[in-house]
Amino acid sequence: MSTIIYCSECLKEYSFIEMPLTCECGGILSIKRNANLDAGKFLNREIWSMFRYKNFLPLDCLGDAWKGITLGEGMTPVVDYGSDFGNLKIKMDYMMPTLSFKDRGASILVAAAKKLGIKEIVQDSSGNAGIAVAAYAARAGIKCSIFVPAGNSKKKIQQIYVHGADVYEIEGTREDTAKAALNKVLEEKLYYASHVYNPFFYEGTKTYVFELFEQLKGNMPDYLWVPVGNGTLLLGCYYGLLDLKSAGLISKFPKMIAVQSHNCAPVHDAFYAGEDVVKPCVNKGTLAEGIAIADPKRGKLILQALRELDGEVLTADEKAICAAAKKLAGDGFYFETTTAATFAAYFSNPDFQDKISVLPACGAGIKSSII
Amino acid sequence: MSTIIYCSECLKEYSFIEMPLTCECGGILSIKRNANLDAGKFLNREIWSMFRYKNFLPLDCLGDAWKGITLGEGMTPVVDYGSDFGNLKIKMDYMMPTLSFKDRGASILVAAAKKLGIKEIVQDSSGNAGIAVAAYAARAGIKCSIFVPAGNSKKKIQQIYVHGADVYEIEGTREDTAKAALNKVLEEKLYYASHVYNPFFYEGTKTYVFELFEQLKGNMPDYLWVPVGNGTLLLGCYYGLLDLKSAGLISKFPKMIAVQSHNCAPVHDAFYAGEDVVKPCVNKGTLAEGIAIADPKRGKLILQALRELDGEVLTADEKAICAAAKKLAGDGFYFETTTAATFAAYFSNPDFQDKISVLPACGAGIKSSII
Repeated sequence: MSTIIYCSECLKEYSFIEMPLTCECGGILSIKRNANLDAGKFLNREIWSMFRYKNFLPLDCLGDAWKGITLGEGMTPVVDYGSDFGNLKIKMDYMMPTLSFKDRGASILVAAAKKLGIKEIVQDSSGNAGIAVAAYAARAGIKCSIFVPAGNSKKKIQQIYVHGADVYEIEGTREDTAKAALNKVLEEKLYYASHVYNPFFYEGTKTYVFELFEQLKGNMPDYLWVPVGNGTLLLGCYYGLLDLKSAGLISKFPKMIAVQSHNCAPVHDAFYAGEDVVKPCVNKGTLAEGIAIADPKRGKLILQALRELDGEVLTADEKAICAAAKKLAGDGFYFETTTAATFAAYFSNPDFQDKISVLPACGAGIKSSII
Repeated sequence: MSTIIYCSECLKEYSFIEMPLTCECGGILSIKRNANLDAGKFLNREIWSMFRYKNFLPLDCLGDAWKGITLGEGMTPVVDYGSDFGNLKIKMDYMMPTLSFKDRGASILVAAAKKLGIKEIVQDSSGNAGIAVAAYAARAGIKCSIFVPAGNSKKKIQQIYVHGADVYEIEGTREDTAKAALNKVLEEKLYYASHVYNPFFYEGTKTYVFELFEQLKGNMPDYLWVPVGNGTLLLGCYYGLLDLKSAGLISKFPKMIAVQSHNCAPVHDAFYAGEDVVKPCVNKGTLAEGIAIADPKRGKLILQALRELDGEVLTADEKAICAAAKKLAGDGFYFETTTAATFAAYFSNPDFQDKISVLPACGAGIKSSII
């Protein structure tokens, strides 16, 4: 089937080559799911990357563009934590080309840009997505500008520079950074390779649950934990689970446990207030910079996913994030602070420790260390 | 079969529990190869780590000790370089728990220490091996002291600290660092978890070629490139290739191309002088710190491997290493400088570009960047 993009609000449809930044109604765009998935075509074992599941990605528009872009992303291992946490499994999703899970989305997003013949892209990021897009753009020979909040980890900014991208460090909030990027896109009529607006990113993060399904031999965990800021992993997991179920590969969903920083928790607040949309909050500052999103543009979809997956939203405070990062490193696991926030919520909520949990290690510790 | 350790010089044999630091004759120890490998048992697809090849590792002494130690090491992807280098494939061997290929060896070495009930280990390293051993020791609950040359990448030293290891920064040469570690081992009667002396390390690095065999569907490349300092990857590849051949899985060997820094090239000099042993050289200083080994203890074995694999030894100078690192990052690949040295040799030797080459990306760029 051909790839169809549609508006999450008014349902208007667009083709691949006519996809705008947002719908003319202002709504955010998504990619239409493939309604006729064939369980027998789920997996191509010959491919040693997340593209082994390409038959389950509605990306016919891309053809073989991914072959010239891939850096070997995906197929990250699942490890038992052991010691006092016998039900805790970690998906080591930083064992990736640019050392974070964002490579899942960036590889597909940049392949789409390449297929369209785009020469220059713009993106904004708290760090990891910017690194991923910069690396894949370099691989694709596409000029790249990345906007980051001033004051973000220098190590992350350095990783963007090395790939030859132009880096713009923007004072103010994370939202100010996004506005500055959007201004450049609109003024210069450039392609916005945003992991928030561009729906191709979420097709890549789907593969996280496809891998889990293969690795756990069809047995999904009881609890599927995800950090949530803009929801790139959460929504990818949601779409992937819908696909697995509609193909008949799973019969029920795992319960989703989303984690936010206590100091920036707009999804948490909206979810328990019974809202349908996420209202912007004030980011009080957090070490978990990867999820410090005060105004998530796909908030409505995030809330919908959480409700359909019987979700909960937990928060982690700064002290617990530090303590978790130290405990993890002492046990052999060196993860970045945003990942430590997810573990902080796990360690301090014994109610969820009696059944099987999978937590994602989204970024390598060396990228943004506090210890 | 039980695991047998033997002296590379006098061939005296030792059991697992009686393994000394070196043979009583002073010779360096190796592990006896399994002479009865069953090709049908090469691969266990259910295991998503390098332990999928455990039936090809002569490690019966370890039992299931690896299960409590694994961090999901191995199964790194192979990527086509593309652009102007159509015959160049990269094995992305930094997509590992501690971001370097040393996890292959460290996981098995620490599993052996754990099985022996060791409470405290000592190691010396130019960086990556120290990080790997520190992480796995933390995972195993083993106290760990790591000796590193003062002046090595601060980023690498930080990664050792975070896992709770005691770090000793030693002034002088890399050999001075090794001597200081050895002194502590001898004085305090501790276990030397050295990737140079301890033969278990080389059983792990074997899995590099086992993976290549599986990924390339049995077709080994024409040229198998390895950086060489102490020869941890080179010897692992050699032993792995011997195993693949004796099991009947391959009929001939790829040609091995080893790379040293121009400023520290004792293997190169000995190889082309027709020597049987490697004489220590003076390290004139190099960005390729991971292979800056002036006195490789397994030099004799390295020369033997190179001759049996129809090898060549190339060198890369500092200017070429810098240029290669920059070119790689511009093409989307961010590797550490030691890895850039291997690519520098490839880029500047067109004679080897007409057939299929596999080069290893041994370490992540963020660990020791010059750009």
